[in-house]
Amino acid sequence: MAHTAPFVPRHIGPQADELQEMLSYLGYDSSKALADDALPSSIQQQGPIGLPDALNEQDTLAALRAFADKNVQKKQLIGNGYYDTITPAVIRRNVTENPGWYTAYTPYQPEISQGRLEALLNFQTMVQDLTGLPVAGASLLDEATAVAEAVQLMARGNAKAAKKGGVVLLDSELHQQNITVTVARAEAADIPVEVVEIADDCDFSAYENLVGVVISNPGTTGRVRDIAPLIAAAKDAGALVTVACDPLAQVLLASPGSQGADVAVGSAQRFGVPLFFGGPHAAFMACTNKLERKMPGRIVGVSKDAEGTPAYRLALQTREQHIRREKATSNICTAQALLAVMAGFYAVWHGPEGLRRIAAEVHGRAVALGVALSEAGLALAHDVFFDTVTVKVDEIDAVLSAAVDAGYNLRRVNDEFVGISVGESTTDADIAELVEILSGQSASIDTAALDVADGPLGEAQVLRDDEILTHPIFNTITSETQMMRYLRKLADRDLALDRTMIPLGSCTMKLNAAVSMEPVTWPEFAGIHPHVPEDQAQGWLELIADLEERLEKITGYAKVSVQPNAGSQGEFAGLLAIHRYHLSRGDDQRNLVLIPASAHGTNAASAALAGLGVVAVKNAEDGSIDLADLDAKLEKHGENIAGIMITYPSTHGVYEEQVREVCQKIHDAGGQVYIDGANLNALVGLAQPGEFGGDVSHLNLHKTFTIPHGGGGPGVGPVCVAEHLIPFLPSDPSADLIEGEDDYSTGQPVSAARYGSAGVLPITWSYIAMMGDEGLTEASRIALVNANYVSRKLENFFPTLYKGDTGLVAHECILDLRELTKKSGITAADVSKRLMDYGFHAPTLAFPVAGTLMVEPTESEDKGELDRFIEAMVSIHGEIQQVIDGKVSAEESVLRHAPFTAYSVTRDDFEEAVSGGKFSRSQAAFPVAGLRTTKYFPPVRRIDDAYGDRNLMCTCPPIEAFETETPDEA
Amino acid sequence: MAHTAPFVPRHIGPQADELQEMLSYLGYDSSKALADDALPSSIQQQGPIGLPDALNEQDTLAALRAFADKNVQKKQLIGNGYYDTITPAVIRRNVTENPGWYTAYTPYQPEISQGRLEALLNFQTMVQDLTGLPVAGASLLDEATAVAEAVQLMARGNAKAAKKGGVVLLDSELHQQNITVTVARAEAADIPVEVVEIADDCDFSAYENLVGVVISNPGTTGRVRDIAPLIAAAKDAGALVTVACDPLAQVLLASPGSQGADVAVGSAQRFGVPLFFGGPHAAFMACTNKLERKMPGRIVGVSKDAEGTPAYRLALQTREQHIRREKATSNICTAQALLAVMAGFYAVWHGPEGLRRIAAEVHGRAVALGVALSEAGLALAHDVFFDTVTVKVDEIDAVLSAAVDAGYNLRRVNDEFVGISVGESTTDADIAELVEILSGQSASIDTAALDVADGPLGEAQVLRDDEILTHPIFNTITSETQMMRYLRKLADRDLALDRTMIPLGSCTMKLNAAVSMEPVTWPEFAGIHPHVPEDQAQGWLELIADLEERLEKITGYAKVSVQPNAGSQGEFAGLLAIHRYHLSRGDDQRNLVLIPASAHGTNAASAALAGLGVVAVKNAEDGSIDLADLDAKLEKHGENIAGIMITYPSTHGVYEEQVREVCQKIHDAGGQVYIDGANLNALVGLAQPGEFGGDVSHLNLHKTFTIPHGGGGPGVGPVCVAEHLIPFLPSDPSADLIEGEDDYSTGQPVSAARYGSAGVLPITWSYIAMMGDEGLTEASRIALVNANYVSRKLENFFPTLYKGDTGLVAHECILDLRELTKKSGITAADVSKRLMDYGFHAPTLAFPVAGTLMVEPTESEDKGELDRFIEAMVSIHGEIQQVIDGKVSAEESVLRHAPFTAYSVTRDDFEEAVSGGKFSRSQAAFPVAGLRTTKYFPPVRRIDDAYGDRNLMCTCPPIEAFETETPDEA
Repeated sequence: MAHTAPFVPRHIGPQADELQEMLSYLGYDSSKALADDALPSSIQQQGPIGLPDALNEQDTLAALRAFADKNVQKKQLIGNGYYDTITPAVIRRNVTENPGWYTAYTPYQPEISQGRLEALLNFQTMVQDLTGLPVAGASLLDEATAVAEAVQLMARGNAKAAKKGGVVLLDSELHQQNITVTVARAEAADIPVEVVEIADDCDFSAYENLVGVVISNPGTTGRVRDIAPLIAAAKDAGALVTVACDPLAQVLLASPGSQGADVAVGSAQRFGVPLFFGGPHAAFMACTNKLERKMPGRIVGVSKDAEGTPAYRLALQTREQHIRREKATSNICTAQALLAVMAGFYAVWHGPEGLRRIAAEVHGRAVALGVALSEAGLALAHDVFFDTVTVKVDEIDAVLSAAVDAGYNLRRVNDEFVGISVGESTTDADIAELVEILSGQSASIDTAALDVADGPLGEAQVLRDDEILTHPIFNTITSETQMMRYLRKLADRDLALDRTMIPLGSCTMKLNAAVSMEPVTWPEFAGIHPHVPEDQAQGWLELIADLEERLEKITGYAKVSVQPNAGSQGEFAGLLAIHRYHLSRGDDQRNLVLIPASAHGTNAASAALAGLGVVAVKNAEDGSIDLADLDAKLEKHGENIAGIMITYPSTHGVYEEQVREVCQKIHDAGGQVYIDGANLNALVGLAQPGEFGGDVSHLNLHKTFTIPHGGGGPGVGPVCVAEHLIPFLPSDPSADLIEGEDDYSTGQPVSAARYGSAGVLPITWSYIAMMGDEGLTEASRIALVNANYVSRKLENFFPTLYKGDTGLVAHECILDLRELTKKSGITAADVSKRLMDYGFHAPTLAFPVAGTLMVEPTESEDKGELDRFIEAMVSIHGEIQQVIDGKVSAEESVLRHAPFTAYSVTRDDFEEAVSGGKFSRSQAAFPVAGLRTTKYFPPVRRIDDAYGDRNLMCTCPPIEAFETETPDEA
Repeated sequence: MAHTAPFVPRHIGPQADELQEMLSYLGYDSSKALADDALPSSIQQQGPIGLPDALNEQDTLAALRAFADKNVQKKQLIGNGYYDTITPAVIRRNVTENPGWYTAYTPYQPEISQGRLEALLNFQTMVQDLTGLPVAGASLLDEATAVAEAVQLMARGNAKAAKKGGVVLLDSELHQQNITVTVARAEAADIPVEVVEIADDCDFSAYENLVGVVISNPGTTGRVRDIAPLIAAAKDAGALVTVACDPLAQVLLASPGSQGADVAVGSAQRFGVPLFFGGPHAAFMACTNKLERKMPGRIVGVSKDAEGTPAYRLALQTREQHIRREKATSNICTAQALLAVMAGFYAVWHGPEGLRRIAAEVHGRAVALGVALSEAGLALAHDVFFDTVTVKVDEIDAVLSAAVDAGYNLRRVNDEFVGISVGESTTDADIAELVEILSGQSASIDTAALDVADGPLGEAQVLRDDEILTHPIFNTITSETQMMRYLRKLADRDLALDRTMIPLGSCTMKLNAAVSMEPVTWPEFAGIHPHVPEDQAQGWLELIADLEERLEKITGYAKVSVQPNAGSQGEFAGLLAIHRYHLSRGDDQRNLVLIPASAHGTNAASAALAGLGVVAVKNAEDGSIDLADLDAKLEKHGENIAGIMITYPSTHGVYEEQVREVCQKIHDAGGQVYIDGANLNALVGLAQPGEFGGDVSHLNLHKTFTIPHGGGGPGVGPVCVAEHLIPFLPSDPSADLIEGEDDYSTGQPVSAARYGSAGVLPITWSYIAMMGDEGLTEASRIALVNANYVSRKLENFFPTLYKGDTGLVAHECILDLRELTKKSGITAADVSKRLMDYGFHAPTLAFPVAGTLMVEPTESEDKGELDRFIEAMVSIHGEIQQVIDGKVSAEESVLRHAPFTAYSVTRDDFEEAVSGGKFSRSQAAFPVAGLRTTKYFPPVRRIDDAYGDRNLMCTCPPIEAFETETPDEA
């Protein structure tokens, strides 16, 4: 017997009496009856999921504590892409642990996202300064995929050479995971790559049609060198050059941009983001202006709003997968926004002076260690290094184990060399102890003395002499009081789940429970390096294995890997598995994927990334897959069909009756079925993709399984496969590359870390543990009830475009505005902006059908919030009706002018400057009574998208841009 | 060498260049030069404080972790006033760990405090429902002082009997600490009390002029009985009756109010507040309408704002010490607001059904334990109980130690009886294990079966049959999403330090660093019961001892006790020490305390509480103590002088030259010098009260030492004494009363727990650890620089009333508005309200001089924030000037109508309903340009104080009261 309150009714929005009211409105006795009616009987799950009994919150915390206690914390000096750093407490408390930041959605609606857009712009500005390149995005998934993306960017940027089959050279001094992941990605995309030792006198002209070169500086074993001559030589050979760098080293070192690089990538982890057993961490990429429109991922840009105020937005979105589909620059969607935000704030907090101090301290201690070891007679691998000392030792096992006993994890570079990467919290005493362990000799360490310019970096003439982080934001906030207020100010500008429903179709913005979030920042989880000895990570490994097993039970698949650190990576991993499965059977010709027209753009982009061609399948009138067209395409492409990608329930928000039949047709044609798990929130406990026909799926733990969206990441996209695809699941990225011909005996890695964004997995583990079989199933049913309630209530105002045979939608509904738009000129975008004035985040706009809004309330919203949303939509319908009735034109309507800032509705010249006398202030700001008690004002008015793309500016704008005059006193 | 960033520049607001700018404006080279000039040389501290070297944040966390790891966590079944409870994670994350809640000030400015006022009103409503009494306050310091306050309340309420020397009876079944603290307080206040066993047939008529009776139900050993007949009998004897009760038991038991009690008190700790090694916890008090105006502490009441909207405020403040001084109903000022807020939210979160389930589970398990032990042949002390089973065992030491080994702390009631108090997280398995430990027999426990009505409470006919928590707020929020949004909504209504400077003179609203706050909720600190065996609390004891020692070094006193859990209690403890010192020397006649007219009201109230008479000493023209008047008073009262209470620097914000001389005069007269530490923020590192003449001081850790104000508590008020007063420091409240005549060999307890609000002491410890000698000293100096900067900058607009001989103020300045008020009719209160429109919390209003505002910026504010405040004040001065110039009348001015809600400045009928055409919307809402980027709107307009006091309503108002109509569409 559970002895304290169960979690299920805390997760689910409607109370029992509210639920009855809603069900009776919909004509059902129970949520089960409604779900039974909505789902095709052919796929309905017969038995329970088979999970352990649900735990209450307290027991869940205890269970997580037990996992945590099985991890062993040491000082993490392993390096290899992951470094000891100190998360400032003010950032941990006010950002990482603050729902105002972590429950926010990706800033596609910029007017209500100005806070996190500013934070991401800080990140971009920091990256630009550190890399010396003019354009940076925010952000990529990890350093390994960032290198892979850079290779593809160079292939796009150097298309002529690429077309001629030219190669991209990868520095053998890249971290192992950067090499393995990049090689796998390049292979899939058919870009020839070669891993080479790039000597100082490397003869690049020996490579014909050289596409690009990736140089690691520092190298994985710590070497720092003057790469300017190398870059020049590579460019002379026609190549583009990417430099993989370390942001803390870049505080001291000459920037890649100044040395001629075209692209720079790296991980921002060591800017205050915990190790998290490998992730989530934000990677960065910067490039030249020439490459900016080819760059992958999100770019925050500066534009202006309707009153001319500078305002932030996502720029150049036409590059991205959600618009450009298979022609996108990348498939990534969810990135690592929250982690980029943290890293940007770390730079704000420390400023250029603080960062220089930290970098100089880290470097000074590394030098002290190197000097002491040299003096003790040990051989160093390199004389010039930033933070990493690689040293030859006699008995490596004994040394590593002595270090562990003394509390230090070091890196086993190979059988002879040990690597020590000094971190932010390493002390002089640590260095002295390490010298003792490594050399048996005692040393007196006092790093206060080192002047960087006099050290090896100075001697090697690799120091930078330009200023960094000169923007005021990095130079005005020094006290914690200022920082706390800055963080609150930015958070307050944004609408996140902690203030309102975010009814984004397909995005599943549901509760991120506090009890699930708490363990994320426990040091016993957060402080573990991904490459620690296994016996130090038993808690992590057990939690992950248990989670994978639970996900297998839920989905009906044979095996799950949590490695993909975003849905896009899960898709890629799944498609890779399908492709390699065919290849392993000699079916080399199976290289086409069928994708319904209504699919997420990411599907097509992922297929492209996996080297598969895309064949679109039409949708029938009712939104379902057009079976006749499917048959025709199968007929036409026959032996070339690798498989199909479908989303279930479909992106039209409907359970298609025929899904089993579709799967069967594909299997009959020798293809594999990929079921996109984006809509799994409508399936858990009700039906299993692994059972009704899927061979592979990816899940979005940040949708169905309550990892918060973090303003655009982190995400986790586990890939789930049937028995026959198990061999093709992602492998360990840190393992050596298999030499010679690929025998398809293993999968390929897709993320830098073995377990991807491990750090956030306790969230999903605890959600499943607290919900149990019945809770998860009921959550799915209530998601259906809520969606159908909204759909039915709005039917007379905004009809739902697609419904199933029984007149029900699944967990979301597409509100069709096209008729209203035709009559009034008011667009779905106008309605999205106007909803902000009512305090709501817009539903999904124009996907999967232009001119519509897709609403997914999720099970976590209560009837009161749904009714408030319905009230707002009905009120907006009334506003549209006024346009239809000719009382006001669309151009002059309150809808077209929305949203309204507090300032705009208070202006003394409101009539002239804002309303044109066509609507009142109260109509603009307080259209329904409920707003009087809780009113959110967007900080800017409608943002000019076109202006921003025409005038791309993606650094923090000068303060003067915001200057306003004090209004005259009355 | 510190290897990471030091904390000091994070705590101190101004950057180096800003500081230079401010100093040069003030005409000084350095902060030291300014401080040297401000402080009388006669008191300037010569050497360093002598603290250990400052630690950085990371090392501080490590040191706190080391303390924490020395505590041992067990299941805490000791009871005795402190119970196992589960803090809901949603409350911990969004309230306890959220600066929006914990950095707020006491809600004296209600328009910007509606969120926490609503939260406290929830608390009051909950207390009223549970106790069945119509009026409850929010809140008292702990259960022990609540009993003591109830005794005094009964003495006031039954004044006739009290005057005749009638006694108050204390139930011997009160928890020991409630008895010892109450006896000490009653003795000081000269109220005769008697501790008696109150048998069911107690003959109250035997007591002549019986003033009151305090009955504990449940009793400390668990007994529950029908106390209605007892209450009736006591009332028949003319007594007032107080019931000390348990809020969780009250969920099931008939309410004290329904049984005829006049007063009910208790601790709300077990409503979700951690054990915290004894505190902070909120105590509650409820009473009849007849006694409401005599009740101690704060009462939140409902009034209305200028537009008729219901609005919350503190009611009946004229009872309180800050207005009524020695005639106040109590001396408490800082209470336990944040803890009351948490307890109220716990009730909101669980609602009546949830609370009934928790209470029934706790009770069911206690019954199961009792039954199993009885069946095993053990004798129970009582047959009818709620949660506490008291059982006789043979070998008590062996039993207790076996329990500890198995992970349970039980209570040693005496040498024969063990007490087990079942808590919220106790499971059936725990009960089975306890049965085994206590009886050696195994039992199968399944508490699912118990129906409370069929159990012992039902049989004893003590169950309540009325509804509780019927207000919608306790019945509408069930999901975590709703709760999270409710908590955010309330927090957003308030202005706390996380959004703006709170320049309250004498309140020292400075940074509460995140790194200091984090350990508060660590289970290793928060989960320790105050009565655990010493070996389980070594971390706590070491931290406290170390903290006390550091405070001794800082103040120059011989010994410090952290027991007083508020400044008021520190004052009381200090005055008790003085009084008892005199008594111990036979100086019984020394019973008068000199208090300057400018002192905090609390001083006088505390003196009254300590049984000392108050003699006012005049202030001279320049604000300093009038030495002539002092001499006259000393002359007049001679041998009756117990001592003097002075604040230094004085409440006038000035270092008085003559302080040593004043101290000497008192000493010469045989008196003791009490130096109020309220202004210690201007002394740390610069001068030591223990050195320049103080015999005793109290500190406010929630002022100088960065414990957050929490919206009105928790606080900690350590008492510091010179060598000769050490014997009179507070003793252990859990120790037995000393029988017979008091020999003055020990002090008396002032708080329920030995170490008071231990739970928040890590905040102060870490602050001192991170600042070190130089940091603390520099903080004091910067506090002076900031105050002098504001004072000088505003000199031409709002002249500073008092300055020292060198033209400097100390850490605060009194802005004199009286001349402006005379000319314009605009009052300091108008300016306070108007500042809200500029986004600022008002300075201290009308203290210590009516018609003034006292500004204390603290060292944590940076120059930018000071300049914004100055800009606002200058702008307001301009608004006043318009009144003076006759452009608008005071009544019609923007100042008198301030503050303005978002709704009010958006109303279409603004001119008619709000401004009367006398000022514009932009002037009302956006008077300075900076507000355009960050504007805070108060949720209500100016609140009608008189209306609220005339129509006292201190429960949650009905929802209908807030109903508004949707404005007509334009």
